[in-house]
Amino acid sequence: MNEFEAIDLIVSRLGSAARGHNVVVGTGDDGAVVRFASDEEVVVTSDVLVEGRHFPKRTPGDLVGYRSVAVNVSDLVAMGSRPRYMTVALTMEAADKDWLYSFADGVRVCCMEVGLTVVGGNLTRGPKSVAITALGSVGADCYLRRSGANEGDDIWLTGRIGATSVALSRMADPASYSLEELMSKRHCDPVAAYFLPTPRVEFALQVSGMASSATDVSDGLASELKQLAKHSKCGMQVEVGVLEFWHETHIPKALNDDDSYELLFTANQAMRNEVTKVGESTATPLTRIGRVNSKTTNVVFLQDGEPLEVGRGYSHF
Amino acid sequence: MNEFEAIDLIVSRLGSAARGHNVVVGTGDDGAVVRFASDEEVVVTSDVLVEGRHFPKRTPGDLVGYRSVAVNVSDLVAMGSRPRYMTVALTMEAADKDWLYSFADGVRVCCMEVGLTVVGGNLTRGPKSVAITALGSVGADCYLRRSGANEGDDIWLTGRIGATSVALSRMADPASYSLEELMSKRHCDPVAAYFLPTPRVEFALQVSGMASSATDVSDGLASELKQLAKHSKCGMQVEVGVLEFWHETHIPKALNDDDSYELLFTANQAMRNEVTKVGESTATPLTRIGRVNSKTTNVVFLQDGEPLEVGRGYSHF
Repeated sequence: MNEFEAIDLIVSRLGSAARGHNVVVGTGDDGAVVRFASDEEVVVTSDVLVEGRHFPKRTPGDLVGYRSVAVNVSDLVAMGSRPRYMTVALTMEAADKDWLYSFADGVRVCCMEVGLTVVGGNLTRGPKSVAITALGSVGADCYLRRSGANEGDDIWLTGRIGATSVALSRMADPASYSLEELMSKRHCDPVAAYFLPTPRVEFALQVSGMASSATDVSDGLASELKQLAKHSKCGMQVEVGVLEFWHETHIPKALNDDDSYELLFTANQAMRNEVTKVGESTATPLTRIGRVNSKTTNVVFLQDGEPLEVGRGYSHF
Repeated sequence: MNEFEAIDLIVSRLGSAARGHNVVVGTGDDGAVVRFASDEEVVVTSDVLVEGRHFPKRTPGDLVGYRSVAVNVSDLVAMGSRPRYMTVALTMEAADKDWLYSFADGVRVCCMEVGLTVVGGNLTRGPKSVAITALGSVGADCYLRRSGANEGDDIWLTGRIGATSVALSRMADPASYSLEELMSKRHCDPVAAYFLPTPRVEFALQVSGMASSATDVSDGLASELKQLAKHSKCGMQVEVGVLEFWHETHIPKALNDDDSYELLFTANQAMRNEVTKVGESTATPLTRIGRVNSKTTNVVFLQDGEPLEVGRGYSHF
């Protein structure tokens, strides 16, 4: 199988995830041509997943495919945008037909779930990695940013954090898992939650008008809170006791080396009931975890009334 | 230097290449927000460059940066679009400050040359590679495609082909080259042409209304002609004698393992003078290399009146 045959194989396996009504030119040319409405702004985000770092060696293609798309969707969600189009560039040492089929399946499942259309990509030989760029649409000036939190705002977090460290410590041979099996367990099994982060698309779209700032948890909650604090020029105080973890004994790790891809955001206290209602109507687990508490940019975790030392967050270098 | 410091360093070094007036939210958030005019369509293309495959080991950062941007611009050009925004995702084993500075310099130089603004990116640890997604804008229905060539059309090619094989066979230690030195030699030295492909932006924008189909030479001229033939459902006949090569003795290789990133396009014979004028007014070397000659999709290279066997084109697998 050469490169062009492999690309044809992936595109055919993507099926309707590679076709959309605003796609003027899709896969198969030098570039894609896509259309946005005249009152929409375009959100762009790129993330690369490297084997052995963002997913274990021997991870089946469908889990790599789903996770790669979900990680990028998470950034679109954090900007308050609707997922629209994406390109996927896959690098691998050999064009393994079964793995490519499986990878395309995982990409397709996540794309269909969130409304993304694959419009292009690239296949290259080299150490295995997936580079995705996702485009979202948002009404003019309706996007969310890391800046914008105000003193007194509530701090909110969807879902549970800490899946990464629990999953990596409990995981069997990654090759033993499949998308089909894990899909039904993603809300109760940390391994499933790690491979298949739940995109919070509908929740974020409905809550975006109420939120003052937002980001997603891709480098640990501690680090993300620091980003909100820095960009918003505010302090953040979080009650560790109310946080929802996948496993209680991993708390320091869960606040740092964690990419749960949950949505972290702030909102005025007057919005508390509205925010809660959006959580209920979209069946999104939601916790009010603390408060924007000062004009200085420190982040404090309180456990039983005492500050907890949590470390520096994840860095690749 | 951690990941966030390294990203700050790159962004500051990009300078005005990371700022544009239609960039609503630039680097530093979960995603960028960019604006297109209401009568514009959005062209999207992604390409990954892997060390040891798309550029040699020990290549200085500025050459990797320039080449990575130029390769993506080449796809935007082939679609007849104007380069607008890009994201750049860099993967490397260690955050080497000097190399990052140099890389950012190369990205900046190419971006400024073609009018691209860097709006986001990613820095990950792993085997060295660069994944870029570039967005271009094009008037509604003004884009070019690989399809559209008609029987009797002229086939045109910008610049010279075959730099890749000549450059790789003549190259000294890649670490001995610099962007500054090669920039002035890109039109006379195959090593310079290999590292620094000349983006044909202005030429393509002016010629796009005259062209019937287009693509860029990223996998050898033979392979690209086959793509035009396949998508346009036409045959292509090219005179080897009129082709401009970097080195005559490498002809079979130059038609196959070659990523010169020149623009290959077809246009009605009635446009011949107009096309020539655009070449002259934009100082773009331009050759009429053959003709779309039939309704069958074969590609024939003629040398002294005899068909030349040229092989299958480059494939990664």
